[in-house]
This record gives sequence, C-alpha cells and structure tokens, in this order.
Amino acid sequence: MSSTSEQSNGTNGHAETVPLGRYLWTRIKQIGISRVFGVPGDFNLTLLDHVYDVDRLEWVGNTNELNAAYAADGYSRVKHGAGCLVTTHGVGELSALNAIAGSMTEQVKVIHIVGQTSRRMQENKMMIHHSIGFEPDHQMFNKASTAFRVAAAELQSEKGAPEEIDRVLRECFVKSGPVYIFVPIDLVDLPVPSTALKTPLSLSPPQDKKAVEAAAEATLEAIYASKNPAFLVDCLVDRHDSIDELKTLLDKVPFPIYSTNMSKGLIDESHPNYVGLSNGIPSRIGVSAGIKASDLVINFGLLPSDTNSGGFTRSIPRDRSIDLNPHTVNIKGDKIFSDTPLKAIIQSIIEKVDKSRLPSVKKPSLPERPLEDDQDATHITQSWIWHQLASFLEPHDVVLGETGTAAFGMPDATYPDSTQWHTQTYYGSIGFATPAAFGADVALAEMAAASSRPRGRTVLVTGDGSLMLTVQEIGNMVKQKASPVIFLINNAGYTIERVIHGAKQSYNDIVPFDYSKMLPFFNMPDEQAKASFHRAETKKELEEILKLDRVKKPDGGPQIVEIIMDAMDVPWRLATQIATRGPEAVKEMKEAGFKVREMEHGAGFWS
Amino acid sequence: MSSTSEQSNGTNGHAETVPLGRYLWTRIKQIGISRVFGVPGDFNLTLLDHVYDVDRLEWVGNTNELNAAYAADGYSRVKHGAGCLVTTHGVGELSALNAIAGSMTEQVKVIHIVGQTSRRMQENKMMIHHSIGFEPDHQMFNKASTAFRVAAAELQSEKGAPEEIDRVLRECFVKSGPVYIFVPIDLVDLPVPSTALKTPLSLSPPQDKKAVEAAAEATLEAIYASKNPAFLVDCLVDRHDSIDELKTLLDKVPFPIYSTNMSKGLIDESHPNYVGLSNGIPSRIGVSAGIKASDLVINFGLLPSDTNSGGFTRSIPRDRSIDLNPHTVNIKGDKIFSDTPLKAIIQSIIEKVDKSRLPSVKKPSLPERPLEDDQDATHITQSWIWHQLASFLEPHDVVLGETGTAAFGMPDATYPDSTQWHTQTYYGSIGFATPAAFGADVALAEMAAASSRPRGRTVLVTGDGSLMLTVQEIGNMVKQKASPVIFLINNAGYTIERVIHGAKQSYNDIVPFDYSKMLPFFNMPDEQAKASFHRAETKKELEEILKLDRVKKPDGGPQIVEIIMDAMDVPWRLATQIATRGPEAVKEMKEAGFKVREMEHGAGFWS
Ligand SMILES: Cc1ncc(C[n+]2csc(CCOP(=O)(O)OP(=O)(O)O)c2C)c(N)n1
Ligand SMILES: Cc1ncc(C[n+]2csc(CCOP(=O)(O)OP(=O)(O)O)c2C)c(N)n1
Repeated sequence: MSSTSEQSNGTNGHAETVPLGRYLWTRIKQIGISRVFGVPGDFNLTLLDHVYDVDRLEWVGNTNELNAAYAADGYSRVKHGAGCLVTTHGVGELSALNAIAGSMTEQVKVIHIVGQTSRRMQENKMMIHHSIGFEPDHQMFNKASTAFRVAAAELQSEKGAPEEIDRVLRECFVKSGPVYIFVPIDLVDLPVPSTALKTPLSLSPPQDKKAVEAAAEATLEAIYASKNPAFLVDCLVDRHDSIDELKTLLDKVPFPIYSTNMSKGLIDESHPNYVGLSNGIPSRIGVSAGIKASDLVINFGLLPSDTNSGGFTRSIPRDRSIDLNPHTVNIKGDKIFSDTPLKAIIQSIIEKVDKSRLPSVKKPSLPERPLEDDQDATHITQSWIWHQLASFLEPHDVVLGETGTAAFGMPDATYPDSTQWHTQTYYGSIGFATPAAFGADVALAEMAAASSRPRGRTVLVTGDGSLMLTVQEIGNMVKQKASPVIFLINNAGYTIERVIHGAKQSYNDIVPFDYSKMLPFFNMPDEQAKASFHRAETKKELEEILKLDRVKKPDGGPQIVEIIMDAMDVPWRLATQIATRGPEAVKEMKEAGFKVREMEHGAGFWS
Repeated sequence: MSSTSEQSNGTNGHAETVPLGRYLWTRIKQIGISRVFGVPGDFNLTLLDHVYDVDRLEWVGNTNELNAAYAADGYSRVKHGAGCLVTTHGVGELSALNAIAGSMTEQVKVIHIVGQTSRRMQENKMMIHHSIGFEPDHQMFNKASTAFRVAAAELQSEKGAPEEIDRVLRECFVKSGPVYIFVPIDLVDLPVPSTALKTPLSLSPPQDKKAVEAAAEATLEAIYASKNPAFLVDCLVDRHDSIDELKTLLDKVPFPIYSTNMSKGLIDESHPNYVGLSNGIPSRIGVSAGIKASDLVINFGLLPSDTNSGGFTRSIPRDRSIDLNPHTVNIKGDKIFSDTPLKAIIQSIIEKVDKSRLPSVKKPSLPERPLEDDQDATHITQSWIWHQLASFLEPHDVVLGETGTAAFGMPDATYPDSTQWHTQTYYGSIGFATPAAFGADVALAEMAAASSRPRGRTVLVTGDGSLMLTVQEIGNMVKQKASPVIFLINNAGYTIERVIHGAKQSYNDIVPFDYSKMLPFFNMPDEQAKASFHRAETKKELEEILKLDRVKKPDGGPQIVEIIMDAMDVPWRLATQIATRGPEAVKEMKEAGFKVREMEHGAGFWS
C-alpha cells in the first residue's frame, strides 16, 4: 500500500514528495488515461498498488499480455490519446512485443510499463526467475524492444525519474508511437519530488514557425498554379491529431477528396467532395482514373504500405504531389521543410488560403457499381456481406476490421458519417482486432460516461482464423460487461491465405470452434448467452438478425453473429490486390477456383 | 508444389539438386523431427508446401504462434530431440518470441524457421505489410531475437545455404537451445546441391579428449579423498543427453542422490540411494541437513536459479563442490576444464572409477512427514492434492506442471519410476504448460507408433490463471485427438501472486471460465465432451474421478478434471520459498491470512 494514501492525488496535500509509483500513475491520469491494461507479475505487483491510489484511474487487466497490448492500442485509437499496459519483467514484456511492434508500425500511442527485477538483482546478475543463463543480463528483454518504440525511460534511480517519465510520455504523443517505462521493483516506493505534477505536461510537437509558414505558402502556390488538384487523406492525420483542422480545410477548399484503406471513415463519405477510396488498381471504376488525372495531389499523413496502396499501384508521380507528413512537408520532391507539425501546417494553410485563387475542380463521378454475378445467391456472399454490415452501422460507431477478407471487404461499403474504422492494414497481425475491440469498447464506455463522445457501438468484424489467436479476450468482455457486436466470418479456415497460395493445403485449415458455446464457456449466464448468440447461413437470416433490438443495442456483454460463408469466396478488392502481382498470381487463383472478378468484368477495375 | 515431387525424399533419385525448401525439410526429418508446428502466413506458404513432400514428416499447425513455440518446446523435451516451428515474417516471428526465450533459459532444442519477405523487398526496403516505417529494415525482427537463440542462419542466397542450415541444426544440439533459420520467400524453390543429405549430420559436441580424461581423474581423486560425498542431479543432464550414462554411474557408485525442482523424475525416486529434492530451505526435513553435511557434492548439470535452489539457500560452498556442466568441469573452484561434454565426462568417470577407493557413505534417512493441520478437511487442500495426483501417475507418464501452486506443490509428492516431469521453473512464463502438453502428447503418440517408447500419458497440471493465457490450444488437442489428462486447479485467481503480494487486490482476480463448457466450445461432440469433463469439490469426489477408466486411459481427446480449491491455500514449499526472503515477507503472508506452515512446525523445514 502506498505510504501517501491519505492524499487523493499527487498534487494536493502538503507532501513535497510522492512515491515514484504514485508519480507515474498521476501523470498517466493527467495525460488522459483512465483505464490501465495488463497482467500482474512478481515484479509489478507493488507498482500496481499505486494505480488504486489515483482518483478515477482503474485497473482493467487482460487474459494475457499480447491481448493487453492490443487492447491498449484499441483504447488509444478510439480516444485519440494514449493507451497503457503493465507487464512483468521478461515473460510478460516479451509476450506483448508483437502487439507493440504493431503499434509502432501503425503509429499508435501506447505506454508499456514494465515492472523489472530490483537493481540489486540486476547488478549482481542474479539468476532470478524469468532470466536467461548463468550471469543473466536482466536488460536483455529491454534491448529486444529498442526498434519497436519511439522512446524509453530505463529507470535506475529515483533521482531524475520524474523528468525521465515526463520526457517519455511527451515523446509518445510527439512521435505518436509506443514508449516503454522500465521500473525496477525497488524503486516503486521511493520518494520523488511531486512539484512537476502541478504543471500539465506539454504534449505538442516541436515547431519551426517559419518553416510552417513557408511550407503553407509553398503548398498554396502550387495549388494556385494547378488546374485539377485533389486531396488524398490518410491515417496519419488521425494519429497526429489533425483531423479537426483537416475537416475545416476540406470544407473551405472544395477539391475532390480521396481516402485509403486505412483512413476510411476519417472524412464522412457523404461529404459533397468525397470521391472514394483511392487504392490504385483495386479501386472502384473511376476512382483511380480520377486521381491520376489530377495535376496535383495533396497527401495528408500518407502511410503508403503495399496493403494501403493497392500493392503500390496508386502511382502518383513525385512531381505532381505534395506530402504533408506528420513532421515534414515535401513539395513535389523539390522543397523539404522540417518541424512542421501536420496540425500546424493545416492551420496555417487555412489561415492563408486565398479562395479567389483556387482552381475550380469538378469532382469525378463514378459509374454505377457493376452487377454481381452472384447477386441472386441466397447464401451469404462476399459481394453482398460488407454492404449489408455497413447498412447496420450508425453514426459514432467504431468498427474494427481484422486482417483477412474483412479488412479487404469492408472498405468496399459506404459507412455512415462519423464512423471510426480501425484495421491493422500495414502491420497486419491477425488476432489484433478482437482484443483491440475490447480496448475500444472500454474507451467508448469511459468517454460516454464522461459525456465527451456519443456512446456509439463497438463493431468487430473478424475471421474465424484470426479469432482463434486471441479468443480468450472475449471472456474479458463478458467479465467486464463490454458490449461490442461481433461479426464472425466462419469460412472454415484462412481464406485470405487460400487465395494467396495453397488453397487446399491443410496448413490453411484451422481449429474449428462451436461458437454457439463460446459465451457460456466464457461464463455468461445461459439465458443471456442464448440471447447473445446468432448464426446466419443465408442472407435472409442475417437480415433478420440485424433487425433484432438486442443486436442493434447491445448491452451488458457482447453480441455474437456467426456468419457462414464459402471457404473459396473472396472480396474482389482482395483478388484484385493479389492480381497486381502479375499474370502468374492470376493464373494460380483461377486454377484454385477463385473468381477473379475484375478480369471478367474487363479492364474496368484496372482503370 | 515442389518440382521434384517424384522423389520420395531428397537423398534418392538421380537429381543432384533439390529445392532449398526440400533440403531444409529433409534435414529436419533426418535429425529426428516428424511433426512440424506453426502458423501459416504469406511468407511461408510455399516453404510449407515442401513439408508435404518429405516422407513421414507432418504439418501439425497451432492456434497461434506463441502456442506453436511452446508446443515445439514440449515436443523437444519429451523426445530428447529438437522441436520445430514455422512462423511468418515479423508478426508470427515476434508472437513466438517469449516462448523461444523460455526455451533459451531452459536449454530446450527448438528450431524456429521464419518465412521472410523476398530479397528484392528487403533490398529495396519496401513497405510490405508486417514492416515498420517508411524505409523498413526487414531484418529488425530478426535482430530482436539475437539474445534468445544459440545460432541463426540468415539465408540471403541459395549458395552455401545447405552448409548454413547444417551448421545451425548442429548448434541446436551442441548448445541445446533455440536456433533460427530465416528463409526469404524467393529462395524456397531455388535448387541447391543435395549431396550433403547423403551423410547424416553430426550432432555431438566438440570434445577435448585429454581434458575429459583429466577432469574425470580430478573428479575421482576428489571423491576418493572425501568422506561423505553426495550427487546432486539437475535438469541440464537431461537437456545434454547424458541421462543414460548418469544412471549407469549412479548404479555403480552408491552415494546419496539428490535432485531439484527441475530434475525431479530423471532419477527414479525408488532408487536405493535417492534421498530427496534438495531445494535449500524449502526442502523436507533432513534433506537440506543431509546435503550440507556432505564434504563433497558432485553437481550434474546444475541450473541454480532462485526457483530451483530455494531462493539460493542450498548454499553448498564452492570448495566442497564439483560442477559437471554441459561443456565444462569445475573442481572446487580450483581447476576448470573446457570442451568436456557432460556425456563424455560421465562415461570417462564410469570407465576409470576404482570402486575399492570409494568412501562408503550412509544415506541420510528422513523423518516422517509432519502431520498436516488440515489433514481432516473434506475439501481439497494444498497439503493433500499433490500426493493424490502423484498416486494417479503411472510409469512412463509425462507430467507438465505449470508455474503457480502446481509447480511448487507437485515436487512434494513422490512419482512412480520413469515419470518425466517438465516445468518452466527458471523461465516461469505462465501459459507454457498447456501448449507444451499438446506438443508432449504429439511426441508421445509419435514415439509409441514408432515403438521407440511406451505410450505413457500426458498429464498436465495447470492453474486457472495460467490456462487463460493459452487456452485455445486445448481446441487443437480436440482437433488432433491428443489425449492428455488435464488437472485444472480452480482457485479463483492467481494464488501464487496473492501469496507474494496483494492477496485481495483485484489485479489478482482472473477472467472466470465455465470449464464444463470448454470441450463443447472446442467442438468436441456433446456426448464425448460430457464423458471427458469432471469436477471435484471434495477429496472424495476427486478420488472417485481418478478411478474412472476413461480418466485413467484417456483416448481420442483430452480429459479435463477441474479441481476446486481455496484461493488462500498454498503449498508449504511455496510459502517457505517466499519466507526465505525474510521476516517482512513472512509478516505480509501471515497478515494476508496465509498459513506459513514451516514456521508453525518449528525450525524443521528451515533445517
Ligand atoms: C500473427 C499472424 N500470424 C499469421 C499471419 C498470416 N495471416 C494473415 S491473414 C491470415 C488468415 C486470416 O484468416 P481469417 O481470420 O479466417 O480470415 P478470412 O480471410 O478467412 O476471412 C493469416 C494466417 C498474420 N498476418 N499474423
Ligand atoms: C507470461 C506471464 N505473465 C505473468 C506472470 C506472473 N505470474 C506468475 S504465476 C502467476 C499466476 C498463476 O496463477 P494460476 O495459474 O491460477 O496458479 P495458482 O497459483 O492459482 O495455482 C502469474 C500471473 C508470468 N509468470 N508469466
């Protein structure tokens, strides 16, 4: 127990010092975190005690450390703040690493606090459990994560610890990515000055005002000189807290707007200037042609991985594009500016824009969607499902799409305004979406309680293969009464891998679960469990389920909708993405029996 | 599909080359592996195709990569050979890392094969999914595991690849630990010379014959000069393939034999010279006194972590001990010999020993176990359960004890002869034991089919908290018809953490499952599932369950025995281990309401 438990938080009372653990958690709370994820262990127990001493900070806990880190990632995405998890030395720390690497790739703010062995144990290289070898270096786990974090506080003394903690928390926001704080267990209860806690941490990035102005002007000059400019909005706008500014700009400057797999939902699809999802070849007819016809594309927060650019087929020439990156600006490969935070540069453009000098641009109109070959099917098809799920969505919902057919299929549908869409499109580690949905729902509930956001629902769309990896976190949803709607695509295996290679190989089979028994196994009372599980084999069945009140307004626990689909059916966006690899890939898909729709419909999809 | 599928393996036929993938799997099979664990992914699919081309090599597959690596570890332990898993670039690779670190700590032979992005993608730092950043170094995942492996083949060309593969497979055995083989996807089908496959790989460690002889003689001289020597057998004897030799020696040289938490079961407890489990202070009365009274202790393959030495309280002075380590010998801190493989040194001692010069030693006799305060309880107690479970064991069973009360409790009981006992006592990552039990059972079935070992049963003893982390692998047991008996200690949380700290804190609560629904959820047919689940709240109930034929002879799937126990009951060995930390720790345990038995029974347990 903390020695300062009479204080309600670290900043009042007369004490000039607080235990280090208390300092840490007070800061964590101050920067906007109210729920802490993680798993206890010998080397973090006393550190966790201090969580309970900070007002309105709550321990959540998870079923394992990987899931804890995914949950912290989901929480961060939804709150546009940071997520936090605590693990124990070595074993817990490494278990979380893959999820942390995902947060690094996707620039998600996650604070990973590791309870370490004591300094004495470390100095004496003691063979304490969780170590390796006869003279173990207790820091070897720490060293393993250096490439997967934007900063780390490797505390070895209470002296200077507050400054280190503050530095690293700031870096988490400035760079937008995971940070580590290592706390040897013997430091937890040592006193540190509490003075700094009186001043809120500054979390905004360094800024070169002159560079920002110059970059804004250069951007505008290029725009004024262009005839047919376009805006391409990508996910880093979201991570670097610039979405409100961007929306203001888009309302003021009426150019065609394109988004990506990863930025879908950031800009309302009902926006008058919105065209569509620019994903290179795997785009709707007209989209790729539209953006290619532009003589200037202004890219906001681009993250152009293969999976976020149609396998690098978006191909906008360097000399026709301006990149407004999180901290730099690149004008047609010509001029580069640094220390130009995205938020600041957008603000500056808004201030400076001379509307009279803007070219007037016509938004390309898209032809009707081609009819689907299998539109009359009564069973549930890839060409039908995603639009159906999207029609279920409501404003303020948060949708998580798992890597698999879901992540390639859902983007094809149109979402209501103010829908958040989260995938791990670049990192693509399956198993992510389920625990992230837990974290997302924790964040939504917290924000609704604080009246800082309409409640919205958490909607998870996952494949059966991916769910297998992290399924126990659904147990945590039941325990903590998180209430996402979970659409579970049961297509008997790893379909996305089947279409890539080895369609019939046994390695693409999975361990089958009987999902009707899942909620009871996770300890949901039988009656509630029965009312919370639904299974659809036909379109009609699914339509009926989506009308159910308890599915539309989930409460007190998750709602599961199992959707039976064909193992050999894939979304056209996925088949087309694979087809970008060349004729060999097309041949293999066809020989395996997959429909490669874009080829059958002619060159349209290849625009 | 492999281009050489007309060959039944890489060594016959007239081809002088085989595809690299085929070379790899042929070697893997040659060194004794018949089952491959792992999870598929874009960058390993074509590599996995080649598994199917090698005779009697089978793909197993797992529910996630962490579990795959644990399964490979369990398979390795049981077979006394290597285990193997395949993962995909980055996401799969990192997911497995914590288990690999465990194999490193515990010196278990695991071959981790990673399907990487193509060389072109790597060279061009392409933003392929699973990478990090804008100019991604695709080798950053590889670099993260350098400290957790004894060797790695980082293939970048088909030239020299067979030699690299061979070198690394050899290191896996020589050093006994995990190795990595990285295979860029574009290398998989390139031809490599197959000539080397005609010669089996040499897997035995380098040996300095003179040093071995000298070390054996020095050991014997010290023994001849001693009055009261003892043998302490630890787990590295097992890892370094020296158990048969050691048994011969122990039969020839009749000194008292002690074992450790980690070596339990290596030497039959019915051996006439066996005394007990030497674990420092947390030992049975008489054990610690016995070994301390020895003027010379010969340590075989010691791994003296805190958890394997009663918190470093075994305390045998350097000048009274000889360490026969895997590759070195240390005579009383005086003389050190290198390149003396354990197996060779033991063989040399056996050859050279002059029985007439051996001191004659009396084996210390242990007083009766003290009566338990709670011996009359009808509910299931910590003082009763482990002996009860041990009485269920039969020769040739393989028992896996999870970190938690199980790992501290089970060693208190006496096992039948030829029982294998596996824990992760040094690394101590919870969640290990369940997937490791799957791997163990796969190995047992395979060896029984090959008539190379009596079938034996896999017996898993796990806590509810630990099971939560990796529970989905039980689904794989159901799918693959693995049939361990699973004793599941349901004591409503992380009891081992409660006794360490925060007994009543919410962080020590877990997500409760309804285990009666577990097998149905994992798709076991209802009737079989009903017959495969058992629940005991009282001693009597458990006794009845243990008599059931289907529990005694599990077949076609796991048998689950849920055992209800008190959240605040712990094995005396655990409380005593914690008590070695000092009076503060004892005070905290007592205040929280734990029974610290050794204190109540007087100094006995502190011998
Ligand atoms: C941790 C991890 N392991 C393996 C992979 C390789 N992988 C990518 S997608 C996928 C299959 C997903 O299958 P499922 O969730 O069933 O989706 P489906 O395509 O069938 O809808 C696999 C195995 C990965 N991306 N991440
Ligand atoms: C991966 C990992 N996370 C956390 C820990 C810390 N830890 C060690 S034992 C334990 C609790 C085990 O509880 P349970 O399996 O229920 O066993 P019990 O002591 O209750 O019998 C925990 C959380 C760990 N060792 N490994």
